[in-house]
Amino acid sequence: MSKRRAKIGLAPGSVVFTGNRKVEKVLIHYMQYDSQRFSEKTLDSHAKTVLHESPDEKVDWYDIRGMHDTELIELFGESFHIHPLVLESIADTHQRPKFDEHRTGLFIIVRALSFNKETLECSKEHVAVYFNKGFVASFQETESDLFSFVRERIRGGKTRIRQRGSDYLAYALIDAIVDNYYVVLEEMEEVIEGLDEEMMDDPTMENKTKIHQLKKQLMKLRKSVAPLREAIAGFSKSDSEFIEDQNYVFLRDLYEHTVQVTDAIDSYRDLMNGLQELFISEVSFRMNKVMQLLTLISVIFIPLTFLAGIYGMNFEYIPELKYHNAYFILLGAMVVIAGVLLWLFKRKHWL
Amino acid sequence: MSKRRAKIGLAPGSVVFTGNRKVEKVLIHYMQYDSQRFSEKTLDSHAKTVLHESPDEKVDWYDIRGMHDTELIELFGESFHIHPLVLESIADTHQRPKFDEHRTGLFIIVRALSFNKETLECSKEHVAVYFNKGFVASFQETESDLFSFVRERIRGGKTRIRQRGSDYLAYALIDAIVDNYYVVLEEMEEVIEGLDEEMMDDPTMENKTKIHQLKKQLMKLRKSVAPLREAIAGFSKSDSEFIEDQNYVFLRDLYEHTVQVTDAIDSYRDLMNGLQELFISEVSFRMNKVMQLLTLISVIFIPLTFLAGIYGMNFEYIPELKYHNAYFILLGAMVVIAGVLLWLFKRKHWL
Amino acid sequence: MSKRRAKIGLAPGSVVFTGNRKVEKVLIHYMQYDSQRFSEKTLDSHAKTVLHESPDEKVDWYDIRGMHDTELIELFGESFHIHPLVLESIADTHQRPKFDEHRTGLFIIVRALSFNKETLECSKEHVAVYFNKGFVASFQETESDLFSFVRERIRGGKTRIRQRGSDYLAYALIDAIVDNYYVVLEEMEEVIEGLDEEMMDDPTMENKTKIHQLKKQLMKLRKSVAPLREAIAGFSKSDSEFIEDQNYVFLRDLYEHTVQVTDAIDSYRDLMNGLQELFISEVSFRMNKVMQLLTLISVIFIPLTFLAGIYGMNFEYIPELKYHNAYFILLGAMVVIAGVLLWLFKRKHWL
Amino acid sequence: MSKRRAKIGLAPGSVVFTGNRKVEKVLIHYMQYDSQRFSEKTLDSHAKTVLHESPDEKVDWYDIRGMHDTELIELFGESFHIHPLVLESIADTHQRPKFDEHRTGLFIIVRALSFNKETLECSKEHVAVYFNKGFVASFQETESDLFSFVRERIRGGKTRIRQRGSDYLAYALIDAIVDNYYVVLEEMEEVIEGLDEEMMDDPTMENKTKIHQLKKQLMKLRKSVAPLREAIAGFSKSDSEFIEDQNYVFLRDLYEHTVQVTDAIDSYRDLMNGLQELFISEVSFRMNKVMQLLTLISVIFIPLTFLAGIYGMNFEYIPELKYHNAYFILLGAMVVIAGVLLWLFKRKHWL
Amino acid sequence: MSKRRAKIGLAPGSVVFTGNRKVEKVLIHYMQYDSQRFSEKTLDSHAKTVLHESPDEKVDWYDIRGMHDTELIELFGESFHIHPLVLESIADTHQRPKFDEHRTGLFIIVRALSFNKETLECSKEHVAVYFNKGFVASFQETESDLFSFVRERIRGGKTRIRQRGSDYLAYALIDAIVDNYYVVLEEMEEVIEGLDEEMMDDPTMENKTKIHQLKKQLMKLRKSVAPLREAIAGFSKSDSEFIEDQNYVFLRDLYEHTVQVTDAIDSYRDLMNGLQELFISEVSFRMNKVMQLLTLISVIFIPLTFLAGIYGMNFEYIPELKYHNAYFILLGAMVVIAGVLLWLFKRKHWL
Repeated sequence: MSKRRAKIGLAPGSVVFTGNRKVEKVLIHYMQYDSQRFSEKTLDSHAKTVLHESPDEKVDWYDIRGMHDTELIELFGESFHIHPLVLESIADTHQRPKFDEHRTGLFIIVRALSFNKETLECSKEHVAVYFNKGFVASFQETESDLFSFVRERIRGGKTRIRQRGSDYLAYALIDAIVDNYYVVLEEMEEVIEGLDEEMMDDPTMENKTKIHQLKKQLMKLRKSVAPLREAIAGFSKSDSEFIEDQNYVFLRDLYEHTVQVTDAIDSYRDLMNGLQELFISEVSFRMNKVMQLLTLISVIFIPLTFLAGIYGMNFEYIPELKYHNAYFILLGAMVVIAGVLLWLFKRKHWL
Repeated sequence: MSKRRAKIGLAPGSVVFTGNRKVEKVLIHYMQYDSQRFSEKTLDSHAKTVLHESPDEKVDWYDIRGMHDTELIELFGESFHIHPLVLESIADTHQRPKFDEHRTGLFIIVRALSFNKETLECSKEHVAVYFNKGFVASFQETESDLFSFVRERIRGGKTRIRQRGSDYLAYALIDAIVDNYYVVLEEMEEVIEGLDEEMMDDPTMENKTKIHQLKKQLMKLRKSVAPLREAIAGFSKSDSEFIEDQNYVFLRDLYEHTVQVTDAIDSYRDLMNGLQELFISEVSFRMNKVMQLLTLISVIFIPLTFLAGIYGMNFEYIPELKYHNAYFILLGAMVVIAGVLLWLFKRKHWL
Repeated sequence: MSKRRAKIGLAPGSVVFTGNRKVEKVLIHYMQYDSQRFSEKTLDSHAKTVLHESPDEKVDWYDIRGMHDTELIELFGESFHIHPLVLESIADTHQRPKFDEHRTGLFIIVRALSFNKETLECSKEHVAVYFNKGFVASFQETESDLFSFVRERIRGGKTRIRQRGSDYLAYALIDAIVDNYYVVLEEMEEVIEGLDEEMMDDPTMENKTKIHQLKKQLMKLRKSVAPLREAIAGFSKSDSEFIEDQNYVFLRDLYEHTVQVTDAIDSYRDLMNGLQELFISEVSFRMNKVMQLLTLISVIFIPLTFLAGIYGMNFEYIPELKYHNAYFILLGAMVVIAGVLLWLFKRKHWL
Repeated sequence: MSKRRAKIGLAPGSVVFTGNRKVEKVLIHYMQYDSQRFSEKTLDSHAKTVLHESPDEKVDWYDIRGMHDTELIELFGESFHIHPLVLESIADTHQRPKFDEHRTGLFIIVRALSFNKETLECSKEHVAVYFNKGFVASFQETESDLFSFVRERIRGGKTRIRQRGSDYLAYALIDAIVDNYYVVLEEMEEVIEGLDEEMMDDPTMENKTKIHQLKKQLMKLRKSVAPLREAIAGFSKSDSEFIEDQNYVFLRDLYEHTVQVTDAIDSYRDLMNGLQELFISEVSFRMNKVMQLLTLISVIFIPLTFLAGIYGMNFEYIPELKYHNAYFILLGAMVVIAGVLLWLFKRKHWL
Repeated sequence: MSKRRAKIGLAPGSVVFTGNRKVEKVLIHYMQYDSQRFSEKTLDSHAKTVLHESPDEKVDWYDIRGMHDTELIELFGESFHIHPLVLESIADTHQRPKFDEHRTGLFIIVRALSFNKETLECSKEHVAVYFNKGFVASFQETESDLFSFVRERIRGGKTRIRQRGSDYLAYALIDAIVDNYYVVLEEMEEVIEGLDEEMMDDPTMENKTKIHQLKKQLMKLRKSVAPLREAIAGFSKSDSEFIEDQNYVFLRDLYEHTVQVTDAIDSYRDLMNGLQELFISEVSFRMNKVMQLLTLISVIFIPLTFLAGIYGMNFEYIPELKYHNAYFILLGAMVVIAGVLLWLFKRKHWL
């Protein structure tokens, strides 16, 4: 939230980049296609001339990588009549996922996720998609292309994506990101299962740190996915003119996926809570077990030491001290006492 | 989720089998009936010729065992005009239970459950049912027939199922699976009750593992049943043309059953939580009790050992050492002291 | 759930008795009344001839005790046109409370409860009421009459129940059962309050068992009452032709009562949870207190025993050993040390 | 709930007093006013003649103190056409707060609360208000007047209450009671804050009892206030003919107050839970600290006692025993050992 | 709540100041603007003459600092036809955030927050905004201006705020306050993260106090923000004539912000709960570790002391005592025993 502060006091709709610049130079990848043809090129980020609405029936897709160039975003806004609040949200990388309907287009913010199995760190990327009839603009934070699969399908020729309009493209972009959630979940599941097995053997302090870390990551994930689900619910229930009837079934399917992801996260959280409880009870149980064992050892020696004390007394008349084999008899008695105590403890399952 | 990954980047509606192949050869069991007649046969899985909509009033039921043959599924889709997303869901064995209305038919996914009382493992099977006017297709993962009772009733003659249409058949199939949930619940209840009794006597480590295992299974169950309830709610409230009015009362009854199952699962979870708490408090209580007992033993010997120490000192002038019976008097005093302490501890209920 | 299993595979609407037979011979008590007259008789359970709809304006009430005679239930179904699913629910004693509207009548299932203050066991009885214009059939599991008060009021003459129709009678029957809940709650409250007082004095293991038992009973109660509340909400909001307008105010009052009962159960559960926490913390607190006391005793003797050890050493030159009163001086010093330690511990509130 | 039992088996609408008689003689205070005039008098509780609907435009307010006179309540019911269920609720002091709309008038039950800062006991009083056009009847359990402020405002002359009708008076009565909740909350807050400070210094057993007691009281409060909120929500949303449009804004304000009270109670409960957790962890922490200290003392003496034991052995050849200053060297060594141990423990922050 | 009590018994709509006077003299800052012009001046708080509705199209904004002058508030009420309940709410600084629609204008109460990173104290300020066509009145508790940024934007000239009406100004005022919440959250986050790191190293008692304090502050925050969210939801969904259509998009954006703030608070609370659990388990773990270590030391010395006791006995015939090197052999044996025990403990990871 470090750069959010910079926005305090500015008028709503001010385009301020609040993230960390992850890209050297903003890159615009432009694609134009219909069911017959397609062309693609990379635009200069300030090629103002090319930013205009194309009159034909084709789908124009501008894919912008990097959001720190607020001027470019404002230029987009002007060229394609995008509402200032949309522009503000595009540049605000802390914006939670949401879906907004505007008069001139539909706008959706999602978060792409990735999971590092070493550091158990979940990193997120702010992604914004704006579209109306025949026009789609997508914004990514980094150079790595989240949409390469979609691009491939467009190039592919006789695919469904080429038959349909800009709404289907917008859907495909978000679907690509949501699909990726399953990879994150799968990787997390692997880590959790590994943890579960390790803990059954011998819980270590390292496990505790991992549990703490994973719980934090799941909380973070939940924070990203819950509003996403709402956003996609809104998307799939919108009766905007920009969505064709035949595509709603795909949006509902997408919504199902987000529900499934949320469910998975929730069940992982339950699992982690269970593991944490298990860890705490297991550790305290083992520690108590050790204490009990140590105390048992003491208890065995206590009567023996007492007996030794008795015959260490200096009374003038202790008849036993005179018997020739008393020492060995006593040693024998001590062995018997220790044995009986051990047997007793064993029988009570204290050992 | 291991095979879900294979789907990343594919277009929506791609039919990919995500499960483990549980069946050698896909088997199609075909039944055709109305209130007067019925016939049944087993089809070759690639008998393309037989896959066509029959024009008469009869109910056609295709029961397919095994989902790995995605080509067959696609063939079904083509022959009976099934939406690609439905086909995708049929082959995706990780799909959570859901109910979808399509223009050409209704689609419902459920999970058949079974419970292994030895391993306390709950295994699930992906089942899909698609139907429209006069046509029902059901998909099972394994060779074992979940629908044998339904088949029997159809063969039975003057049963209600023969009087009614494909919607009643679809209902009967799902009802058969939900009915089976009661068996699972009953078996779980037996295990839980056994556990409850065992724990009252003597809580062992094995109990803890069982509790942990059962809690995980109940969580898994909950994850299957909660969306099922929603799906069946959708089914029973759907106003599709494919459902006859007189059958809604059965759908509502089916919905009641899923509610009852969910309630039972929830109350088992509460029971398990109660058992777990009981286990932890019981174990820690017993351990503390042991520690207390051990400490009491120490405390009884401490003053005695001290006394022995006193008369082990080497002072030249300790008058007691000279008395003839001092040793025996001291022994007596020690017995008295130990007795008094024991009596005190007893009175305070510490022993 | 032991007999539920017998139902697996049967067609929906099959009438199977799933309970334990609690009655030797099924008994039918028949009453007919209007505001002017009333008559009552006990019918033979297979007197098929008498089971027919009476054409006049009077209310016919069949009160059947015992549900194991499924043939009789089916006979009722035929005679009075009751839906098969209703008949199934009547014989299924595990059916949770529910309210169903059918074309031919209204159907409600409730559970009568009783509480045994000795065993702290809550036992329930399955009760079903079906009614339409001028006809009421009620089913009880045991011979003990839950509806004696209602019967009295009908016999009483100029009471409200005689002025009104079958819907008011059905309401009165359910009201009689819900009224009885207050007795159960009252008895539970007594037990809980007794427990609360006992625990304040001295928490024993018996208390723990009682808490565990009561919590389980409250969970069971909750499971019966929550669906009952829903059922009665449905009853009171139904716009069926079988309910007269002037009776809705009574149904709403009945609903209020179920809400009150649920609230009371919830607050008892909170109380029990509070008691349980109190018990655990109290017990662990007392145990720790004992351990602390025991440790204090050890700590007092430790330096004394050390001193005795010192003067038990066999060094040739230990000057103190030669002094005449050294022994007594040491004993005095030991008393002083013990006293100072005791005083210290007292001052720190450790004793 | 002791007297509720008396109601079992009675017909609904039977007027039975279920509380404890808190008033010797039932008192009826009667007030009549409009914007111009007002008169007031105290009626004999059986002055049947005066109980009749006055035909003029004035507001008639009967304020009855004491509910055990069920005959009087029934007389009221007859005189002013009040529904039997309302009469039953008036006399049933265990009735939870509720709002009922009847054809002949509106009925609301609330609970007046007071808090005793010494015993930390929250006591409640059952209050019922029934009104229709120009008529208000209020019922209080005790002689102490909850409505003196309202009475003052009526006597006051040109106040808003004199300008408006019976609905505003009913609102004013309930508002007076809800206003009083703030006093209760304020007093509780004082106690809680005092407790918080005390606990920071030194948690005592008395604190625990207080926490337990306050939690129970808050639970009780919650049980009274939650249904009250619902009741007032119903009141403020009712579209009864008995409420004038201009008064709804006051009802909404009243509703806001009950929401605020509920919120305050919830946050106090959270505070109490926090305090309780703090108490338990604090006490167990201090106890552990003591145990650790005691164990440290033992650990310091253990090697010293061992050394003394060594030189107390009776071997014939132990060279050290012969050295002249060995005794003093040993004593010195013991002091050094003890010192080193103390220094070690200090450095590890164990002391 | 100390001054709330003063309100008991007063008629609803009585204007009573319930806060602490934070301002010496009430200050009224007046601004008038439209898209062409603007003027501003500071009014004397009793300049009755200037308080009148201006007939032209401009926006009149009265910004009042200080609420203790209830006469002034009543004067405002009279001059601009504000409902008495609104006036009461303005002066009642304990009023929770809310949104009210009145016939003559819209009214919204919010709380401005600030966070002190030293004392970890969250302080709040009561802010009220009332507006209708062309008129806005805002009330602040202190002299520090929460709205300076808004004022700057008005002075700024061709800004959006100058183009739009009083509804946009009201929105801008509330937006300024909600924007400030992000600063509070950011500061809290810093503190929490610092705490997290500190705890990982070495949990101290100071951390515990901080956690307790932060949890209380978050609870307080939640109590302010939750009703604010509801209020703003009401604002953004209101279909009042006083809000222009084009401004709803900003209100929805504002609502999004409050949702984001609530989410952040909730996740901080989860974090704090996690930290608290971690603290408790960490502290108890370390303490147990110390106890275990101390007990291990005792256990090593116990057999050694026992051996010393054995050879301190005074039996006449103990052959070992006579051997010349027995003493040294025994010492060697003791070293070996201690060594073996240490090695054992090490191997079991107890040390």
